[in-house]
Amino acid sequence: MVTKQHLLEKVRTQKPLIHNITNIVVANFQANGLIALGASPIMAQAIEEVAAMSSHADCTVLNIGTLDHANVLAMIIAGKSANQKGTPVVLDPVGVGASEFRKQSIANILREVKVTIIRCNAGELAALANVDWQAKGVDAGEGQLDVQNVAEQVAKQHNCIVAVTGVKDTVTDGQTTFQIEGGHNLMPLITGSGCLLSAVTGAFLAVADGQNLQATATALAFYKQVGENAAQNAIAPGTFAVELINSLYSFTSEDLRDNMTIVENTGIQL
Amino acid sequence: MVTKQHLLEKVRTQKPLIHNITNIVVANFQANGLIALGASPIMAQAIEEVAAMSSHADCTVLNIGTLDHANVLAMIIAGKSANQKGTPVVLDPVGVGASEFRKQSIANILREVKVTIIRCNAGELAALANVDWQAKGVDAGEGQLDVQNVAEQVAKQHNCIVAVTGVKDTVTDGQTTFQIEGGHNLMPLITGSGCLLSAVTGAFLAVADGQNLQATATALAFYKQVGENAAQNAIAPGTFAVELINSLYSFTSEDLRDNMTIVENTGIQL
Amino acid sequence: MVTKQHLLEKVRTQKPLIHNITNIVVANFQANGLIALGASPIMAQAIEEVAAMSSHADCTVLNIGTLDHANVLAMIIAGKSANQKGTPVVLDPVGVGASEFRKQSIANILREVKVTIIRCNAGELAALANVDWQAKGVDAGEGQLDVQNVAEQVAKQHNCIVAVTGVKDTVTDGQTTFQIEGGHNLMPLITGSGCLLSAVTGAFLAVADGQNLQATATALAFYKQVGENAAQNAIAPGTFAVELINSLYSFTSEDLRDNMTIVENTGIQL
Repeated sequence: MVTKQHLLEKVRTQKPLIHNITNIVVANFQANGLIALGASPIMAQAIEEVAAMSSHADCTVLNIGTLDHANVLAMIIAGKSANQKGTPVVLDPVGVGASEFRKQSIANILREVKVTIIRCNAGELAALANVDWQAKGVDAGEGQLDVQNVAEQVAKQHNCIVAVTGVKDTVTDGQTTFQIEGGHNLMPLITGSGCLLSAVTGAFLAVADGQNLQATATALAFYKQVGENAAQNAIAPGTFAVELINSLYSFTSEDLRDNMTIVENTGIQL
Repeated sequence: MVTKQHLLEKVRTQKPLIHNITNIVVANFQANGLIALGASPIMAQAIEEVAAMSSHADCTVLNIGTLDHANVLAMIIAGKSANQKGTPVVLDPVGVGASEFRKQSIANILREVKVTIIRCNAGELAALANVDWQAKGVDAGEGQLDVQNVAEQVAKQHNCIVAVTGVKDTVTDGQTTFQIEGGHNLMPLITGSGCLLSAVTGAFLAVADGQNLQATATALAFYKQVGENAAQNAIAPGTFAVELINSLYSFTSEDLRDNMTIVENTGIQL
Repeated sequence: MVTKQHLLEKVRTQKPLIHNITNIVVANFQANGLIALGASPIMAQAIEEVAAMSSHADCTVLNIGTLDHANVLAMIIAGKSANQKGTPVVLDPVGVGASEFRKQSIANILREVKVTIIRCNAGELAALANVDWQAKGVDAGEGQLDVQNVAEQVAKQHNCIVAVTGVKDTVTDGQTTFQIEGGHNLMPLITGSGCLLSAVTGAFLAVADGQNLQATATALAFYKQVGENAAQNAIAPGTFAVELINSLYSFTSEDLRDNMTIVENTGIQL
């Protein structure tokens, strides 16, 4: 099994090319975060070129934050191109519960593209599983949900990894489930911290040699620690966003500590 | 009459959902500013979902900064949805004087949507009123204009509040007019300070229980003080943009001082 | 011959209006950088208004970073409008080697629009010249290339200035060639440092009174020093991006030192 340290080193050595189809809110933050981490981002969404971009890329990251008809189509084309190449695809179903259009778009993407991992928050997980939930826009919202159990079911249904992030992160392929602790309460107070995490996870997957569950859990464990590190120099969200980029750049593999545990599968069928 | 302190507290307690159709330049800044303030932003512009988003939202903010045919249509659909729901609509006519397309788009929006408030600068006010003005792109530009008088006329014409921001802000519903002093000369040196103010005003309107003029004046009075506060930690615009977000987060209702006055209506008819 | 100091002062005094058709990743950074420098940015890409915007502007900057069919068309319309007005046009062929669509779009723009300057990195130069090159997404990539020679050939072919930026910058009109030294290794670690440079160059061209080669070289020499200045307050890319904006604002003409030299034309024909 590859170590967390080894994976981070591989990202920085191999500088994987990450093709992002993302939203107008976080595009800059996501690109800067990937560069700071050591990866090489490309942002492209034209129908005419996304197949080529995903074909050259080491990973494709699809984000529906400010989706429209054209860029959902681009996401499907890019995802299929990555599938053909055999490279990982990360899906970030931003605010999927907020409109029927988002639900149908995600359903279309999941039907057409073999997704390696869905990275979402608890509210988005609830929408994916058609569970009642009180979400608010693209925020996680509040509700009673057995996150681990629902995540395992969604992972089995789509035959992919599901990573649900929040105060505690849950990562599962439906069989093995990790929980990750840590992070900082400033993280949800900046826009795009989840979107950037999806892209960071893509960079780890790009160098994982198929050890996708381990790589996903590592990316999340790493990101929580990067957030804690950033918070040492910030008490408010403006500075925190800057420091998160700084920390992605300066956090070393030696800094990594163990903050993830394997938990027992719930074994519950929905 | 609700106090300024009370309105700010309500924003932070109720965390209103603000639906923004905005431009590619300020989307990130606007989202981060709203979160820092305590509101909950959603950015969405697809024709297929904007009615749903504005129907769920507590306020809708329309900004034509990088408009195109599709997102002006989306603004009209979103605005009508907000009108049906009875929630406030903020219109930011960015650079309306800079092209015939902007003028016609704003005219279309104002014809189709009942707007609660127009938040603009002096150059944009001049364009709205068809007054000669030497504007430069989306900046306020320079010209001779009796801002108060023209703002009162535009407010009467569109039966809405008009907030004209600059060195001194003017807020009027055509009958009662406030002037607000303060702010800092770094504010116009960052892109999107006006756009973010429009969204911040939307958050105050969302909790105003119909006291819209008071809420608008309060938002502007608050924002000027937040800018002053941010400038205490910044001497250049890069840092100032970061500190403005920090200050939106950390500025408390106890910090608020009185910087607005009611001025006599000019009584002049254009 | 105008001095570097004089050109910078003219930018700050004349505050030229720069019309940018740019990408969703850097739009905010580019606008903030132009304002900090002292110029006046407008970002507009609607087919219906770009001719008007470029007609009013002192310079037009075209950037294909997140191009699509519509905004390439807008770039051609805007470029033609600037040509009619006789104002300079800057072309930033972001990642032109990364897809056939980008190559064809740049070819279309160069066929339809008289471009004053192409501002690119070495990988993009190689793609423009159809030279083999190992590029990675929109990064410069690695390869063996006689940058000066190829830049001179491309400049002659398109009858324009070519500015190739990297560790060492090369600026040429095909006859006279400058090399510029300096800068900082944090510069390529933030997204949009090249895009912003293209816009900054546009601001210098806007006040150059036709001394375009000198103005371009001056913009690049200035920008490298601004980057060095910013790096004095930053050790990681998050802070560096903020400090670059600060430095564009605070760097004075007195701070400028000589970091450019005229080098002999290679005289080689491709």
